Amino acid sequence: MTNLAIGVDLGGTSIKAALINRDSGIVELRSSPTLAHEGPDKVIDRISMLINDLSAEAVGDSIGGIGIGAPGAVNWERDTVINPPNLDGWQRVNLQVELQDRLRTNLPVIVENDANVAGLGSAHYGAGAPHNSFIFVTLGTGVGGVIVYNNKVFRGATGGAGEIGHMTIDYEGPIDHAGVAGSIEAYIGQRFLSKHAKYRLHTKTNSLIHKMTNGDLNTITPKILYEAAEKGDEGAIEVLSWAGHKLGCVLGSAVNLLDIRKLIIGGGVSAAGSYILKPAYETLVRFVIPGLRDGLEIIRETLGNEAGILGAAHLVFEYLDEHSYSA
Amino acid sequence: MTNLAIGVDLGGTSIKAALINRDSGIVELRSSPTLAHEGPDKVIDRISMLINDLSAEAVGDSIGGIGIGAPGAVNWERDTVINPPNLDGWQRVNLQVELQDRLRTNLPVIVENDANVAGLGSAHYGAGAPHNSFIFVTLGTGVGGVIVYNNKVFRGATGGAGEIGHMTIDYEGPIDHAGVAGSIEAYIGQRFLSKHAKYRLHTKTNSLIHKMTNGDLNTITPKILYEAAEKGDEGAIEVLSWAGHKLGCVLGSAVNLLDIRKLIIGGGVSAAGSYILKPAYETLVRFVIPGLRDGLEIIRETLGNEAGILGAAHLVFEYLDEHSYSA
Repeated sequence: MTNLAIGVDLGGTSIKAALINRDSGIVELRSSPTLAHEGPDKVIDRISMLINDLSAEAVGDSIGGIGIGAPGAVNWERDTVINPPNLDGWQRVNLQVELQDRLRTNLPVIVENDANVAGLGSAHYGAGAPHNSFIFVTLGTGVGGVIVYNNKVFRGATGGAGEIGHMTIDYEGPIDHAGVAGSIEAYIGQRFLSKHAKYRLHTKTNSLIHKMTNGDLNTITPKILYEAAEKGDEGAIEVLSWAGHKLGCVLGSAVNLLDIRKLIIGGGVSAAGSYILKPAYETLVRFVIPGLRDGLEIIRETLGNEAGILGAAHLVFEYLDEHSYSA
Repeated sequence: MTNLAIGVDLGGTSIKAALINRDSGIVELRSSPTLAHEGPDKVIDRISMLINDLSAEAVGDSIGGIGIGAPGAVNWERDTVINPPNLDGWQRVNLQVELQDRLRTNLPVIVENDANVAGLGSAHYGAGAPHNSFIFVTLGTGVGGVIVYNNKVFRGATGGAGEIGHMTIDYEGPIDHAGVAGSIEAYIGQRFLSKHAKYRLHTKTNSLIHKMTNGDLNTITPKILYEAAEKGDEGAIEVLSWAGHKLGCVLGSAVNLLDIRKLIIGGGVSAAGSYILKPAYETLVRFVIPGLRDGLEIIRETLGNEAGILGAAHLVFEYLDEHSYSA
């Protein structure tokens, strides 16, 4: 069985693709701007070109298939992208058929939600590797989640499981973009967190944040908060700690429901590291029932964007494992 | 393969056991007081006697095994009960060994948490039967939960999954018995709900509840609230509706995390039926992200206590399915 696959990370601004070796990871990386406004056909052409380039690099070695992480929902059969945000005109696109046509191949093409492939990447190449089951949480613009159970993504009834960002921690709290009150995303999604920081630091004129943003608190980012915290800025530390405590509440609910006790945190906001994760752990313990506390752990994912490409390729390796009966 | 098994429901006040036919359900039912204060040995003797009685009823037909629903935690191997509440002196009891010894049999004895067996009962004999995956919620003294995924109990990493009662809907809310703030149990667990009703109806002197409790609001039960609601009592309807809305919030969080869209509600408090479940559904929809709303349904379980015995017996049928390779 071949050890090579191509992993693709289809994003709103760029497409990343790589030739992946199952054991050693990324062999060769390519990328291209998405230019999503040109519509699906042109974007799929670009994906197809990247794949052709990478196939040429595999000289002599056979490639097992192509895995793709895409934004939005993916159907149960994992061939079709449905209503992806940030991709104009993509209501429903069967990427498997489109790519097999363009590439004139019968190689398996497997599509999966981008959060899910990032979780798979973590499970096989990142902080999740030592654990059979974990909850993977991405702290970025939004708050994404993936349940990895016995080394596979738990997909739920239709493939949409893992939306931890929209679990509520206060039924009368602020409303997120999906309309849910008090969801964790409405506290610590990047935009909400920055806004909270702005209000909280507004009157703390001695906070470094005022200098670091040249007085424009609208430009606060988690990165700025983290840098200020590193320099000992109390205001920044307070804001990140506030965010961490909120995160701990929702993680507690998830642990109580799933009895999965390893929580892996990735994404841009997680750069703030222990300033968020330490208070998160303190609160987590209080929100998990005593019988489920043994072995509770919050772990920071160290893989960056490559988690998605690696996880996408791993879709292929999983597929080959399931469809191969030879030695 | 035999179609008969014995299901046991071990409770703090009574032990119920039944001979179960896989297709037709309960064939013969027996019960005995638990007399838990006499300690594990005596209680296990009583379980063993009930099983012997039922075996005698099976004249000629072979019995496939014994399934037991027990309070508290059960180990991963499903043979040992750990720290069951309401059973004195049971820190850790291997019920499989104890019963096989007493019964002088090698028949499989499988132990499982009582909430989980009730969920299994629903899955195979109750409201869950038409659905492959659902979340089963028991509204009683506490709020219990079971995740049934592809017709099996989702057990999590150590067998403790399903504690929906301790998921928070308000991180600054009232504290439940496990120490979790704002958990759903701290709102609608029987004792909390009765207390809430007491405070809420205290000044509503025209509410029927005052008559129905002979003026002692400490004796309010969900049943009394339901009966008053049936008679059109506004105060009672308000309290049940308040409880339903709270329930909807936590169900929404669970749906977002699991993408399981059928919610089956059983237990004593569910007797209040649509007075709780209708408002629960209204709120549920608002707490589930739009992409996961299709097919959302709250269904009332109609099986009563027998769900546990039926589910316990089904542990045996599952076991036989997995361990039999003959036709």
